[in-house]
Amino acid sequence: MNESAVGTLMNPASVAVIGASEDQNKYGGRLFKMLLSHGYRGRIMPINPARESLFGVKTFADVAATPDVPDVAVMAIPQPRVRETIEACAARGVQAAIVITARFSDAGPEGAALERDIVDIARAGGIRLVGPNCLGIISPANRVVLCPSTALAADGLPVGRVGFVSQSGALMGTIFDKAKEMGLAFSHAISVGNQADLELSDFVEFMIDDPATSVICTYIEGLKNPRRFAELAARAREAGKPWLAVSAGRTRAGAKAAFSHTASIAGERAVFEAVCREEHVTLLDSPLTMVALATSLADHPRARIDRIAVFSPSGGEAALAADEIEVGDMHMASFADATCEQLGAWFPPSQSCNPVDIGGRTVGDGPDVVGAAASVVAGDGGVDALLFAITTSPTLDRLAADVADALAIDAKHTPKKPVLYVFETGRLADAARTSLRERGRWFSNNLREAVDVLAAWHARSTYSSPGRTERPHRCPSEASDMTKDRVYGEGETRRVLERHGVTVNRERLARNEEEAVALAEAFGFPVVLKVVSPQIVHKSDVGGVRIDLYNEAMVRDAYRRIHADVAERAPQAHIDGLSVQTQFKGKLEMIVGARRDAAFGPIVVFGAGGVMVDLLPVRAIARAPVDEQRVIELLRRLPLWPLFEGFRGARLDLQGVVETIVRVSWLAADLADHDFELDINPLMVSSERVCAVDARLRMGKGQPE
Amino acid sequence: MNESAVGTLMNPASVAVIGASEDQNKYGGRLFKMLLSHGYRGRIMPINPARESLFGVKTFADVAATPDVPDVAVMAIPQPRVRETIEACAARGVQAAIVITARFSDAGPEGAALERDIVDIARAGGIRLVGPNCLGIISPANRVVLCPSTALAADGLPVGRVGFVSQSGALMGTIFDKAKEMGLAFSHAISVGNQADLELSDFVEFMIDDPATSVICTYIEGLKNPRRFAELAARAREAGKPWLAVSAGRTRAGAKAAFSHTASIAGERAVFEAVCREEHVTLLDSPLTMVALATSLADHPRARIDRIAVFSPSGGEAALAADEIEVGDMHMASFADATCEQLGAWFPPSQSCNPVDIGGRTVGDGPDVVGAAASVVAGDGGVDALLFAITTSPTLDRLAADVADALAIDAKHTPKKPVLYVFETGRLADAARTSLRERGRWFSNNLREAVDVLAAWHARSTYSSPGRTERPHRCPSEASDMTKDRVYGEGETRRVLERHGVTVNRERLARNEEEAVALAEAFGFPVVLKVVSPQIVHKSDVGGVRIDLYNEAMVRDAYRRIHADVAERAPQAHIDGLSVQTQFKGKLEMIVGARRDAAFGPIVVFGAGGVMVDLLPVRAIARAPVDEQRVIELLRRLPLWPLFEGFRGARLDLQGVVETIVRVSWLAADLADHDFELDINPLMVSSERVCAVDARLRMGKGQPE
Repeated sequence: MNESAVGTLMNPASVAVIGASEDQNKYGGRLFKMLLSHGYRGRIMPINPARESLFGVKTFADVAATPDVPDVAVMAIPQPRVRETIEACAARGVQAAIVITARFSDAGPEGAALERDIVDIARAGGIRLVGPNCLGIISPANRVVLCPSTALAADGLPVGRVGFVSQSGALMGTIFDKAKEMGLAFSHAISVGNQADLELSDFVEFMIDDPATSVICTYIEGLKNPRRFAELAARAREAGKPWLAVSAGRTRAGAKAAFSHTASIAGERAVFEAVCREEHVTLLDSPLTMVALATSLADHPRARIDRIAVFSPSGGEAALAADEIEVGDMHMASFADATCEQLGAWFPPSQSCNPVDIGGRTVGDGPDVVGAAASVVAGDGGVDALLFAITTSPTLDRLAADVADALAIDAKHTPKKPVLYVFETGRLADAARTSLRERGRWFSNNLREAVDVLAAWHARSTYSSPGRTERPHRCPSEASDMTKDRVYGEGETRRVLERHGVTVNRERLARNEEEAVALAEAFGFPVVLKVVSPQIVHKSDVGGVRIDLYNEAMVRDAYRRIHADVAERAPQAHIDGLSVQTQFKGKLEMIVGARRDAAFGPIVVFGAGGVMVDLLPVRAIARAPVDEQRVIELLRRLPLWPLFEGFRGARLDLQGVVETIVRVSWLAADLADHDFELDINPLMVSSERVCAVDARLRMGKGQPE
Repeated sequence: MNESAVGTLMNPASVAVIGASEDQNKYGGRLFKMLLSHGYRGRIMPINPARESLFGVKTFADVAATPDVPDVAVMAIPQPRVRETIEACAARGVQAAIVITARFSDAGPEGAALERDIVDIARAGGIRLVGPNCLGIISPANRVVLCPSTALAADGLPVGRVGFVSQSGALMGTIFDKAKEMGLAFSHAISVGNQADLELSDFVEFMIDDPATSVICTYIEGLKNPRRFAELAARAREAGKPWLAVSAGRTRAGAKAAFSHTASIAGERAVFEAVCREEHVTLLDSPLTMVALATSLADHPRARIDRIAVFSPSGGEAALAADEIEVGDMHMASFADATCEQLGAWFPPSQSCNPVDIGGRTVGDGPDVVGAAASVVAGDGGVDALLFAITTSPTLDRLAADVADALAIDAKHTPKKPVLYVFETGRLADAARTSLRERGRWFSNNLREAVDVLAAWHARSTYSSPGRTERPHRCPSEASDMTKDRVYGEGETRRVLERHGVTVNRERLARNEEEAVALAEAFGFPVVLKVVSPQIVHKSDVGGVRIDLYNEAMVRDAYRRIHADVAERAPQAHIDGLSVQTQFKGKLEMIVGARRDAAFGPIVVFGAGGVMVDLLPVRAIARAPVDEQRVIELLRRLPLWPLFEGFRGARLDLQGVVETIVRVSWLAADLADHDFELDINPLMVSSERVCAVDARLRMGKGQPE
């Protein structure tokens, strides 16, 4: 047994059920009954002072009266009695307690205070807590059921290799019931409730090391400790144990609903998603899709998914499947000639070369033909996975099972390659469903759901290993000098960037008109003039910027107009002078920013700027510092990427963009201990080079000096 | 009874079942049994020369031997016998025949020839045909089952108000079975097979007029007659009868699969989708989603869907539902204060104001509370639809039925507003599912599917009525002069556009350098020079274009360089001169094109041009001529729309763009009888005006003159 408290919780030698009864309308009654009926091998000690025995099991008046110290106490009792019960458990030396009872931090400040109290009591007494406001633990791997969900009322507790940690108890019970119907099963499932003590990450950590768990699933509403989440994700990635997650709140409406419902804090979603991708935590939209993918991953942990072979008794259904596959960014496999030739023995040519139309037109007409055909296709090196989209068919009852038998490479009916079965029919397919369940194979009842599984798998297949993160040359840290809460003006920010090796356009301060003209002539036309004043942050708003100055006369005119406009619109501002800058014409404007994310620390953010901000609002995010390979990967996923691939022969300076982002990320990393926000807007990008032509940096609360 | 052949098919007074047997492994056996067992009220005449009777029904040796002329003959017989059987039916005076038998045009040229033969024979004999290669007709409304699908083996033939016409038989059977499980039902369902005679549109036309059908569903792989489809769609729209469609082939992979499977011709998908939208035919991705939406539309034909109220016993599930709703472009409803106040009597504040968390925390805890709460929410003017996402819950069995009872406004349990029930649990919800089915209410077992229904309904809610289409002023037709197969050069195309009222930039032909300079000075700098030669189509490729000419010297230089480059790269070309044009700097380049679509006739196509072609490749399509209101609607749905809404204070000339597109559409309409292709690329758009600065027109095969 695992020596940790979590290990004890997942496989206790003895359990005290506080609040046990025979009443199946009550949480304590159901919990007790389900522990009894699912084959728990340890000692059960029901606590109920009013009864001698419950379902024939001897009861005890309280936890102090138990003959042995129970490893774990689970309680489904009125909220006002929880505190004294935890005290009693502490006094008895119980190692861990599960508090099913709700109305703590989930129900307002009073409950939250009580929750803090019981955590304090538990800690002082050496007890680790699950909950409160949770549905407890189901461990099919260990035959431990400490959970009152009605989903457990049915017989059978199939054992799988998928671990599930859920911030929602009802969702856990729901998925548990649905999964069973679909032939999916778990090693362990835990509802963590309010996470007053033990939290989601504690159970994930257990599962990373747990040999009974091959793939980890999580339902997340908000992270208690984001940094720990990221560290564990890196550990799971390094250990090669896939981690999948559904996280409510991917939209504003969802976030609002999720956070009114739990006490969890919202980090910035986009950063969370970026971290998940960096650490190979796959995010899915539906818990069931997650568990289905996890189950297939348990069989095929190293499969890369892209080229799908489709089988269906209906040409129409096959065509819809092909549509879904392409929408899911995958490909219909191109069969090898030899494959088509072999299939040609059973099917006419137009129905044998993916999709395979196994409808009434097979020669021989039996499902044995389909099994043989599936084996041929599974042996094709150009096929990553097989999808059976099963409609009404005279052979419906046997078809899926015969295919599963034909493809099985072991007693568990594991196929050589991933095989997904979809039953689009209703009750007509029940016998077929049962036959797959009996073989330990799962199925979906929904084409989209099955393709979603493949699509998420495909997305996982594109993950890359992290590259080496090295500080670039000529990129010294100077963060120690930058600790004051203030806003850096454009000129100062440029100098910070320059020292980190970021290219900026030429710029000097002109204190009078003649200096401005001289600088312009020295730089070469066209130039830009910008007002410099500590009081003016938004220079354009007060007429403080003039661009496209092609000759001396235009510079002189612009110089005067800026002074006149600023005098009128910002009369209180002290003008230090005008900044004369070379005008850099790029083919693309980008925004490159950096800041400290409250949850995950320093990050860089980049995407399209200028006129394209509204058209292509998607930005890429990476934790800082970032390496070149990752930046290129992220750029490839941005909608502006075609510009870097070469448009009408005009390629952009990709290397310059990548280097700028890497250098900014090192600046961000140097500032990791501070609250800060940096914006280069725009970074001009041409075919030959890049150039930051405006930038601003805020440190701390950012008082302007 | 409807007097048409289709009317007869849907409700025949008598049916001859050719190939009837008792063998349920055979199509003819199943078909006969299912006709018997589902309560058909007409006369059944099984044709089987080998038997006296089948299941106690007297048989006949052939169709000639029947006592009365059967209205309809249905045949599931070997392919080689179909021709003689059709001949016999013609001789007997049968009005319509359903040919279940396959291996006609679906199986290659030989089958196609035989198919043409039997159509000829049928026509000559006055018989209308369904099929071949089809699964026939199911009409619950008339208790007529002429279909061998195994989906009909189960008892019961629930009657609904949704008609379904399918190009896939297996898909029809599949959906029929699944629909039954989900509480969905049909008025009629038809599998049209190869559509050798009667086709999808014939049955849609019947349903438009059929009082038993409130909503029409279709599964489409390829249109036999696109123009008729469009006409019927307009008729259905005008009649206020919703028409929904799933059409395989929305991706290249799907189209390839669909068209290898049927003999149908691929029209251009994007045009088909545009026509569907114009005529309010809603396209969906899944047949089941389609039938579910249709069923809800039958209850609420005028409902507009956007603001959704979510109920769930699980806060987590509710949050996931809120996410899906926002992803589906809809909104979580904001409850009125009075609604929140009333709900406050039963739920704590954080769980009562959408989503409504009906989990264990209700006061009273019974489903009666949920029914009452649902009634309050259904009465809120800010709520368009209610979504119940049902997870495990102690009250699971009664919850949905109690809500359905509370919201019922008639004996059919029709609610005042659309209500969708989702059961995310597995078998645990079976009793609840049954209770809804018994009430004639449907449910989904998949959150995404239910939200897809709402999202498609929401999309329908944004349809607008067609505007008035009037020829703009100063837009004479001149198509009669433009019938030759040839390519119009830039100059000629400009003049055609100008005559249709489209603004083009100033342009004149210069025959020598001095003329070029004089024109440039007359137009004002900057100008553009372009070579004009009948042999040169792609001017830029041979160095034939120079832009940004700001003064006389630049014009002279450009003039000489163009001549030098063209002489070198296209030595055989005869140069008419150089076109001198004003250079128009826009903030946006657009492409506006027009052509004749093979399926639907003249269309206009428009979208982003220039550098944005690769970034924003989505284009809008409308049939020509198009009215201003529709153009604005389509522009709003393009990703470039933010530029028209005003970006950094710079609005673009929307009116100019709209007018240009309308005028081009009239030109396209004028050319409707010809094969043609017109491209304005680019149309430059600034804040004040628009200007076509390059254009080309191909008529017919487009030989250059």
